[in-house]
Amino acid sequence: MNKQQLFEHIKRKRSFLCVGLDTDIRKIPSYLLTEEDPIFAFNKAIIDATADLCIAYKPNLAFYESLGVKGWIAFEKTVKYLREAYPDQFIIADAKRGDIGNTSEMYARSFFDELDIDSVTVAPYMGEDSVKPFLIYPDKWVILLALTSNKGSRDFQLTADATGERLFEKVLRKSQEWAGNEQMMYVVGATQGQAFEEIRRIVPDHFLLVPGVGAQGGSLAEVCKYGMNRHCGLIVNSSRAILYADNSERFAEAAREEATNAQQEMEQELKRLTI
Amino acid sequence: MNKQQLFEHIKRKRSFLCVGLDTDIRKIPSYLLTEEDPIFAFNKAIIDATADLCIAYKPNLAFYESLGVKGWIAFEKTVKYLREAYPDQFIIADAKRGDIGNTSEMYARSFFDELDIDSVTVAPYMGEDSVKPFLIYPDKWVILLALTSNKGSRDFQLTADATGERLFEKVLRKSQEWAGNEQMMYVVGATQGQAFEEIRRIVPDHFLLVPGVGAQGGSLAEVCKYGMNRHCGLIVNSSRAILYADNSERFAEAAREEATNAQQEMEQELKRLTI
Repeated sequence: MNKQQLFEHIKRKRSFLCVGLDTDIRKIPSYLLTEEDPIFAFNKAIIDATADLCIAYKPNLAFYESLGVKGWIAFEKTVKYLREAYPDQFIIADAKRGDIGNTSEMYARSFFDELDIDSVTVAPYMGEDSVKPFLIYPDKWVILLALTSNKGSRDFQLTADATGERLFEKVLRKSQEWAGNEQMMYVVGATQGQAFEEIRRIVPDHFLLVPGVGAQGGSLAEVCKYGMNRHCGLIVNSSRAILYADNSERFAEAAREEATNAQQEMEQELKRLTI
Repeated sequence: MNKQQLFEHIKRKRSFLCVGLDTDIRKIPSYLLTEEDPIFAFNKAIIDATADLCIAYKPNLAFYESLGVKGWIAFEKTVKYLREAYPDQFIIADAKRGDIGNTSEMYARSFFDELDIDSVTVAPYMGEDSVKPFLIYPDKWVILLALTSNKGSRDFQLTADATGERLFEKVLRKSQEWAGNEQMMYVVGATQGQAFEEIRRIVPDHFLLVPGVGAQGGSLAEVCKYGMNRHCGLIVNSSRAILYADNSERFAEAAREEATNAQQEMEQELKRLTI
């Protein structure tokens, strides 16, 4: 999916919501555990209940890997189901990969070739040659970690060099030498508030993937105020608040209610754009 | 495995060689492709041919994930085989993970609880709370990326702050607040030469995992000269040079010859210690 298609998708849906599929076997309603593949059964119900309200899904690889082979089967089934039933959805493999060239190449093949996923989150620590193998696929995206939503983001990401440039700013600047805003997005945590203003000075036209609204405490209004650009430029993720809104047989219905609330708030924000 | 046991293992084997299981389906001898599980068949042959010459194995997750479910089955079979046939081997999941707390927790469970792997490589970009969930398991290790072997290591890792401290040095210093040398090691690429001297000033007693000897051009003699401490303190990895020493039916024999060369060189280096 290219940038224009993504923006069209956002306008059509009047939403820039991403539903994070952080599916935890210990948190899903217990009656699902008798299903042959409880994780996939849960994901399918969540997807069917929210697909008209969101523009993207973000399976978090850790949650699948923690179940070993069974988890991978559930992950692949989820991706295939999305591709078949909702082909316009933007799929993000939240993997935070990044390794030397020949290894990143393997990850890129895994996500883009084998599974036809649209994008993968990548950690920048190892630099250019760890990111570039992901950039040879047309209409596929790297979503590079810039300023994350967690407390530990302060440990290294905010360190300033002798010129005052902080690490996350260096990541934003340097990585623009590797690809433009048609192939690269950045992760910026919703908890970072006004930092969005500074980030927009460096990457005015890029899409930002924004986790941390909801369970982690970020505010959608603040993210939009400081982070939205004239093509929206935001994909805002919500995971736990939607997935675990209810723990009974009406979990999918409750998830839909949560997603509807988010979509409606986003629709209001989108009205500020002349689209 | 704790630090003392690891050192005993090194003395017993007269080696600090780690064999990197970067098993690529396109590079293994073609006659193996008729096997039910070619990746596992290859790994088992390599392990059986090298286990008396090395102290650790490092499966690189990307190579398994790129094959999807089949790859995960091969990965798990490899780990189980190692645990059963060679229980003294130190197993490193080379995964370069690192995510917000609840996600890192899932990865930790996956590698340490489910699979009983000894250690996992972790990227430091997201800071303390992305690393700590790996540290609650006694005798399990985090191997944190510090100064990697690739060209891109210069992009961010060498950036100095206002006081002159470079990012990799900050990672080394800061992370010592999270765990000591009984639970933390660092990745330092063999291509970094004299940087080992500076690194040893900050982490004199830690083990370092050193990739990049062989195919990537690092020198074992130089790594030992600048990086060895009185408890050896080095785990030197070789992947491609051993795995793909020969492409015929005698691949395992050729791998053994390469591993033997490395072990013999390491035995000489170990003689400099009074062990």
